[in-house]
Amino acid sequence: MNKILSQVARGSLSIDDAGKRLKHLPFENIDFAQIDHPRSLRKGFPEVIFGQGKTSEQIIGIMEKMISKEDIILVTRLKKQKAEKVMAVFQKARYFKDAKLLWLKKNEPEITGFGKILVISAGTSDIPVANEALLTARAMGNEVESIFDVGVAGIHRLFAHQEQILGAAVIIVVAGMEGALPSVVAGMIKAPVIAVPTSIGYGTSFKGMTALLGMLNSCSSNIAVVNIDNGFGAGFMASSINHVSIA
Amino acid sequence: MNKILSQVARGSLSIDDAGKRLKHLPFENIDFAQIDHPRSLRKGFPEVIFGQGKTSEQIIGIMEKMISKEDIILVTRLKKQKAEKVMAVFQKARYFKDAKLLWLKKNEPEITGFGKILVISAGTSDIPVANEALLTARAMGNEVESIFDVGVAGIHRLFAHQEQILGAAVIIVVAGMEGALPSVVAGMIKAPVIAVPTSIGYGTSFKGMTALLGMLNSCSSNIAVVNIDNGFGAGFMASSINHVSIA
Amino acid sequence: MNKILSQVARGSLSIDDAGKRLKHLPFENIDFAQIDHPRSLRKGFPEVIFGQGKTSEQIIGIMEKMISKEDIILVTRLKKQKAEKVMAVFQKARYFKDAKLLWLKKNEPEITGFGKILVISAGTSDIPVANEALLTARAMGNEVESIFDVGVAGIHRLFAHQEQILGAAVIIVVAGMEGALPSVVAGMIKAPVIAVPTSIGYGTSFKGMTALLGMLNSCSSNIAVVNIDNGFGAGFMASSINHVSIA
Amino acid sequence: MNKILSQVARGSLSIDDAGKRLKHLPFENIDFAQIDHPRSLRKGFPEVIFGQGKTSEQIIGIMEKMISKEDIILVTRLKKQKAEKVMAVFQKARYFKDAKLLWLKKNEPEITGFGKILVISAGTSDIPVANEALLTARAMGNEVESIFDVGVAGIHRLFAHQEQILGAAVIIVVAGMEGALPSVVAGMIKAPVIAVPTSIGYGTSFKGMTALLGMLNSCSSNIAVVNIDNGFGAGFMASSINHVSIA
Amino acid sequence: MNKILSQVARGSLSIDDAGKRLKHLPFENIDFAQIDHPRSLRKGFPEVIFGQGKTSEQIIGIMEKMISKEDIILVTRLKKQKAEKVMAVFQKARYFKDAKLLWLKKNEPEITGFGKILVISAGTSDIPVANEALLTARAMGNEVESIFDVGVAGIHRLFAHQEQILGAAVIIVVAGMEGALPSVVAGMIKAPVIAVPTSIGYGTSFKGMTALLGMLNSCSSNIAVVNIDNGFGAGFMASSINHVSIA
Amino acid sequence: MNKILSQVARGSLSIDDAGKRLKHLPFENIDFAQIDHPRSLRKGFPEVIFGQGKTSEQIIGIMEKMISKEDIILVTRLKKQKAEKVMAVFQKARYFKDAKLLWLKKNEPEITGFGKILVISAGTSDIPVANEALLTARAMGNEVESIFDVGVAGIHRLFAHQEQILGAAVIIVVAGMEGALPSVVAGMIKAPVIAVPTSIGYGTSFKGMTALLGMLNSCSSNIAVVNIDNGFGAGFMASSINHVSIA
Amino acid sequence: MNKILSQVARGSLSIDDAGKRLKHLPFENIDFAQIDHPRSLRKGFPEVIFGQGKTSEQIIGIMEKMISKEDIILVTRLKKQKAEKVMAVFQKARYFKDAKLLWLKKNEPEITGFGKILVISAGTSDIPVANEALLTARAMGNEVESIFDVGVAGIHRLFAHQEQILGAAVIIVVAGMEGALPSVVAGMIKAPVIAVPTSIGYGTSFKGMTALLGMLNSCSSNIAVVNIDNGFGAGFMASSINHVSIA
Amino acid sequence: MNKILSQVARGSLSIDDAGKRLKHLPFENIDFAQIDHPRSLRKGFPEVIFGQGKTSEQIIGIMEKMISKEDIILVTRLKKQKAEKVMAVFQKARYFKDAKLLWLKKNEPEITGFGKILVISAGTSDIPVANEALLTARAMGNEVESIFDVGVAGIHRLFAHQEQILGAAVIIVVAGMEGALPSVVAGMIKAPVIAVPTSIGYGTSFKGMTALLGMLNSCSSNIAVVNIDNGFGAGFMASSINHVSIA
Repeated sequence: MNKILSQVARGSLSIDDAGKRLKHLPFENIDFAQIDHPRSLRKGFPEVIFGQGKTSEQIIGIMEKMISKEDIILVTRLKKQKAEKVMAVFQKARYFKDAKLLWLKKNEPEITGFGKILVISAGTSDIPVANEALLTARAMGNEVESIFDVGVAGIHRLFAHQEQILGAAVIIVVAGMEGALPSVVAGMIKAPVIAVPTSIGYGTSFKGMTALLGMLNSCSSNIAVVNIDNGFGAGFMASSINHVSIA
Repeated sequence: MNKILSQVARGSLSIDDAGKRLKHLPFENIDFAQIDHPRSLRKGFPEVIFGQGKTSEQIIGIMEKMISKEDIILVTRLKKQKAEKVMAVFQKARYFKDAKLLWLKKNEPEITGFGKILVISAGTSDIPVANEALLTARAMGNEVESIFDVGVAGIHRLFAHQEQILGAAVIIVVAGMEGALPSVVAGMIKAPVIAVPTSIGYGTSFKGMTALLGMLNSCSSNIAVVNIDNGFGAGFMASSINHVSIA
Repeated sequence: MNKILSQVARGSLSIDDAGKRLKHLPFENIDFAQIDHPRSLRKGFPEVIFGQGKTSEQIIGIMEKMISKEDIILVTRLKKQKAEKVMAVFQKARYFKDAKLLWLKKNEPEITGFGKILVISAGTSDIPVANEALLTARAMGNEVESIFDVGVAGIHRLFAHQEQILGAAVIIVVAGMEGALPSVVAGMIKAPVIAVPTSIGYGTSFKGMTALLGMLNSCSSNIAVVNIDNGFGAGFMASSINHVSIA
Repeated sequence: MNKILSQVARGSLSIDDAGKRLKHLPFENIDFAQIDHPRSLRKGFPEVIFGQGKTSEQIIGIMEKMISKEDIILVTRLKKQKAEKVMAVFQKARYFKDAKLLWLKKNEPEITGFGKILVISAGTSDIPVANEALLTARAMGNEVESIFDVGVAGIHRLFAHQEQILGAAVIIVVAGMEGALPSVVAGMIKAPVIAVPTSIGYGTSFKGMTALLGMLNSCSSNIAVVNIDNGFGAGFMASSINHVSIA
Repeated sequence: MNKILSQVARGSLSIDDAGKRLKHLPFENIDFAQIDHPRSLRKGFPEVIFGQGKTSEQIIGIMEKMISKEDIILVTRLKKQKAEKVMAVFQKARYFKDAKLLWLKKNEPEITGFGKILVISAGTSDIPVANEALLTARAMGNEVESIFDVGVAGIHRLFAHQEQILGAAVIIVVAGMEGALPSVVAGMIKAPVIAVPTSIGYGTSFKGMTALLGMLNSCSSNIAVVNIDNGFGAGFMASSINHVSIA
Repeated sequence: MNKILSQVARGSLSIDDAGKRLKHLPFENIDFAQIDHPRSLRKGFPEVIFGQGKTSEQIIGIMEKMISKEDIILVTRLKKQKAEKVMAVFQKARYFKDAKLLWLKKNEPEITGFGKILVISAGTSDIPVANEALLTARAMGNEVESIFDVGVAGIHRLFAHQEQILGAAVIIVVAGMEGALPSVVAGMIKAPVIAVPTSIGYGTSFKGMTALLGMLNSCSSNIAVVNIDNGFGAGFMASSINHVSIA
Repeated sequence: MNKILSQVARGSLSIDDAGKRLKHLPFENIDFAQIDHPRSLRKGFPEVIFGQGKTSEQIIGIMEKMISKEDIILVTRLKKQKAEKVMAVFQKARYFKDAKLLWLKKNEPEITGFGKILVISAGTSDIPVANEALLTARAMGNEVESIFDVGVAGIHRLFAHQEQILGAAVIIVVAGMEGALPSVVAGMIKAPVIAVPTSIGYGTSFKGMTALLGMLNSCSSNIAVVNIDNGFGAGFMASSINHVSIA
Repeated sequence: MNKILSQVARGSLSIDDAGKRLKHLPFENIDFAQIDHPRSLRKGFPEVIFGQGKTSEQIIGIMEKMISKEDIILVTRLKKQKAEKVMAVFQKARYFKDAKLLWLKKNEPEITGFGKILVISAGTSDIPVANEALLTARAMGNEVESIFDVGVAGIHRLFAHQEQILGAAVIIVVAGMEGALPSVVAGMIKAPVIAVPTSIGYGTSFKGMTALLGMLNSCSSNIAVVNIDNGFGAGFMASSINHVSIA
């Protein structure tokens, strides 16, 4: 903006033209596909490609536009067949099948987060969502650990991991069915807990709605919730929390 | 029935008349108000009066019909004003305000149940429903104990009562909000657990629906659920369970 | 614990080391997969494997860990293809196709329950869920009988079985559509009834939600409800009830 | 219409004017308030005033417009205070407090229906809705009988009335909570059953939604359902059915 | 019953044995599969086989049990593949593909109903459900006519059929999407209307729930509603209504 | 903006200061209460005060800030008590009790809209919402007419107003219960229809949800819908449509 | 009508016959399939064929009936396989695969609308619905432009198109997930906005319900909403709005 | 624990007694009311009293037990009348009427959080919930700022506060109606956003459910959500996040 104003001061730019340029200043970097390049600056991480509902051609096209400007590209909710087409073009891309996540990295992401992020899952069937969270947080520069299969029906299993739990900076708890695990975990610690309901269950689990409602009504208070099966969002939010104290 | 058949055998009753009587046999005791007197025999406890939606006059009328034949009369979901009118007529009746339950007993009910029924509540606000369960089970001839305010946000409070929990024959767990407590309790024991969701909470607690859904989707399996705020039903079911082995 | 304390008393264990061991005592038996071995002691039955959402490899892996320590292994919600892979490894396993249940037994389970458990289904289409309940209860040491296809639209069919119904210690009633059968059955007896809604129906049956709601709002009181299609849970709960009076 | 055409034939009415009149013919009787006077002819009963959401002034105004042309005026869902204001003006009007229904009759309605309409209610609390149905059917020229308080928890009470049930031309069954009674009644007979869910219940009765869903999913087939608490509609529909064979 | 009582009077039957026989009297006709043979007498039509969720073997088995005793057998919700297997055994059976209905008739059903039943559908896509209603009503001895594709967006199309509509004894109106057609039709006539919501639509049609709710809230009163896509129930109910005046 | 740029060109404003001013330019008019004064320019009508959930003090405060700059102030969803307090301060304000709307006008709004807006209501009880729409549209410079009480149960009443309907530029249709009226109206014309569901009804009307769903699933296509009881929004949208061709 | 009346005046038509003809006048053009030919006159556009739930044979049949009388035929929600069969018959038809729309035009539709219609989509996945809207509006004689992929997570992308947005007569905004984009767009302008929720999203997006609810509760007021994924309806409504000022 | 083990080592405590004490160690501090005193240590803040559903006597009783051990006591969801009774006993307590929050502090809480917490509200009516969040965060040792009334219908109002927004460590965004504000705010920054839906709105706002769903489906990813109207939980979670980097 200063550059434009200097030109006006110098008389090398008319008032009218300056007015027009100022109006559009923040958008000059935006191309036809509306890719949000300044996002890396604004958000600390490039735009993430939501794979569901896009063709592999669209995904490859967006990746080609991003590849020169970004250090890492993340594609989420990507089915295996599409992933294979993407990897045929970008041979350095790596695909994680159960998490349905693909990444393409120029370098291994530097660990920039403050502490450890711990991902806990209630059941074996919740692991794919837990892994999506884990990989997202790792891609965003965090040290991440995990504990799987420690549901509330055998609560002592959870307590065996007490030290690891107390040592985490941020905890992501992934659970389906009644979704009670985040309440119990959050009751043990003062660190923030991101609760992720999964669509695991049957009948009145309502594809994760019951778990979600349970988590929203937790009697613990250091909890906030993301959408059903949204491992990516949980990992992103946890990373955002883990970077609060980072300049 | 044998009496009628004997009369037929003796010829003192015509075949036609015997036919008519046999058709109506089980119903001769049923008066205009359709009170189910044989229920004491069939179900082991007289019909219970559901106070909600009945006038105090109707309740008194039904009680007057029952009083000669039953040892105990129970009225549930009875508001204070109606209870006072009922007690003006039946001075030996006793009203429990928070549980909204009234009983009229000829004698103290004999303890006939097999073991102890334990009523656990998650929060202070769940106590009225817990008390409705407790009083119902007591009225039906069971030894009953209670532990209140041991929600999952401070799970160690629950473990302090481990011995009492392990010693119960049947456990009723009453909880609102996320309704996670029954899962944790049931995970600790092999006794059957009756889970009672309460309408305590706000926002997405949906007046107990969230707690109910959580309980139905429990990852523990020695659990079954009753309607929201149905302390009476829980007490009745627990008593039924506690009498399975009683002739 | 006594062993550790004895070592402390003898001085053969330092106070610090004793503290550490005591913290982890209940969890030493827990392996990487978090299998809950002490559950047999605590709950009277080993952990049951929920087959849905697990690969056959995962199921086989868990079974291999359990096989040495348990007398019976139960796998529920197991599709036929997975079951065949499991049976290729565990040739003594038996698979019940309509109930989607597999068991592997070292010995025939001893009958330890107090009385008979009776499983009643409203329609022919409810039989798979009814069988899951029946097989679970049988596996857990109960004598089990069944009556199928006695829905309320021809209520006299139910009454033909009155004696069998009155003779049961616990009754499981399985029904879809309007889910009215448990109310009628429970009204006939004093034994506890476990009501199981099924997803049978169409349109506003909402995959079992209507049956579930009907059961929760039963005007009979010796009823409690489990999740939609949860035959396993009903069998487990009925067995738990049938063992209340068993030391 | 013939009158207008005659005038055209005679030349006493221009083609243009005749066109205009013909367009509006069926509506000449319709005043500002859009009262549907021809409805008595078309529907066999005058327009019924839905009292809810109308002021007593509006109700009186409409009644004044109708009084000269109709033999009977029915007002439904009318609260007591409004009813009193209406009766101050129309002193021959009669108000039924529990049914919240008011009628004003020039003569006692002639019995024109084919057979008897029987109104059955499951509980005492369902009686107001049952009475709304009963009074509506009576006002529309039907012989009506009733049986109250015969819910499915004591199914034998229902069977005591078997003859009366078998003798009815049309049956209205009113029930709240789980709404199972219409299924059982319809299973006993071949006459059509109108099922009326009521908002009686608590928790998951969802103000009648559970009863409604149960009725819609009935395994009996001679059943159709009206809106929750819609006693008026049930009475109207039953009368319509009872007049099918009447010229 | 009289036979048994006569034997008792004659002394050829002991009182005890008579008692036992009387208890089971209504059920002697009931075989292992709980087929409700007396239903033809009680309900005026034999039990109808609900094809959904039954194997073709089960359906054939039930048909074989019924064939000797009934004049007509109806199977509903029968998929084409199953129907073909059934027709391989019962070569006189006829299958209606779009209505998914199969019947097996010894004779053409006699027309016993009072008047005409008219089936109206809102759209072309509603025709399969309309046909299920039409065929059911025809099988039950009614004269049936139909008008298809007269939705409310072009309301004048409906009025073209006014005479046919006014001449019907009972009308079935089948509609998806907003489900407004039954209201409009019922407003034109005094005959009873059975409204059938269909699952036709998308988005917020919620598979027929919107149409159902619209029909339940109709501002016309000679309407009652059946379950979504329940053409069979509508035809059955209409026939029941059309036989009210038939001895 | 031009003024600032001129100052820079003239040198009377430093580049730095110009930068600061430009950043905040559109917001200088915005005071602590964040009133959106430029909205009159941007939207063609000043910000409307949503009365619900605001105290009369807050409303008066906002009006005082707006009064100098705007020609008209509208307050919606304003209860009578609050309105009286507002009118004590602004004596020229006018309050419409049934529409719960208050306006304060410096001059009568000029008619600027293209054609007539017609407001149709299905029932008498829908009139308050219809009046909110009517008054809003009038305040925004439109000629508005109304037809009340023409529901689909007597569809001929609607057709009596055919000419008025065909003459409207935009039509607002307000209906509760089954919400079918907008479909029928839209089917008659090519003008756009704004459908407004109302919370009028009972039982499964679900406080307007049924009407809303019906309208969203209309088989007519020149329809769009606003929130339940949102007469204001409908009037605003209709006015916006009626001004599309106005410079 | 005048023709008939003239005949009556001339005596060449009896009054009776004239009466009969007048009753059916508006329907003489209606053939067996109930195609609404006068709709072009009444609505300004011929009936549109809703392809979902119709066979290709039915679609071809309707098109054959329409082809001689209409300038353009539109088929919506047409799957590719059916479209191919239709195009084999009507070789001039054009199919738009992602919008699932087919049209058959005799001539290019004349631009008759007042201004430009602008279609904005929030995400790439919303484009098929946006294109259905765009093509519909174009077919109906409107100039249409589009801006895709400008969701609220990068709100500056939207502002880059401010001029294009301010220049539109009507705006259609298509969005899934949280559905916030229409609120933001409507807040920027005074033109009417048609909001289209899409079923894009997962978990609690509930197949578009969340987006729909967000749009209905917009704090902007120049918004109205159509059904989920109803691009066709949005285009139709926008065209209707854009023709308000056209004779 | 060390103390007990030392006694065992010294022989001053028997092994048996030590075993008993160790079992109950964490619970010795717990009195009848199950107050969770160790929570200050475990969670960094004493137990917060949920005022809703507790009597003022119960609240005072709990406060009396806590007062000696805690530096601050917080009571949430406390109605004015109860607050006055509490303040009569604890005269140093301070009550915030719109936030319905009461606190009792021995000292002003030290600012221990890492950065600033910013609370943003969409509308004036959302301020009470926003204030509950603000006061909670302040009580827990955080610097807190607020921006109120910057909803998305006038999005430029938000941008005026860009610097304040970019400077916050954690942001709480409170919004009712469509709940779109958190998405827009989160899109501008990389700090974590806690979204709080409020019950402000009408019709399909469903008491905050629409706002909640919108927030859960945000296309921004640095967002997590708490229960409807749960300002307390948002403040608590934000404080937890703001203390992640604090030892």
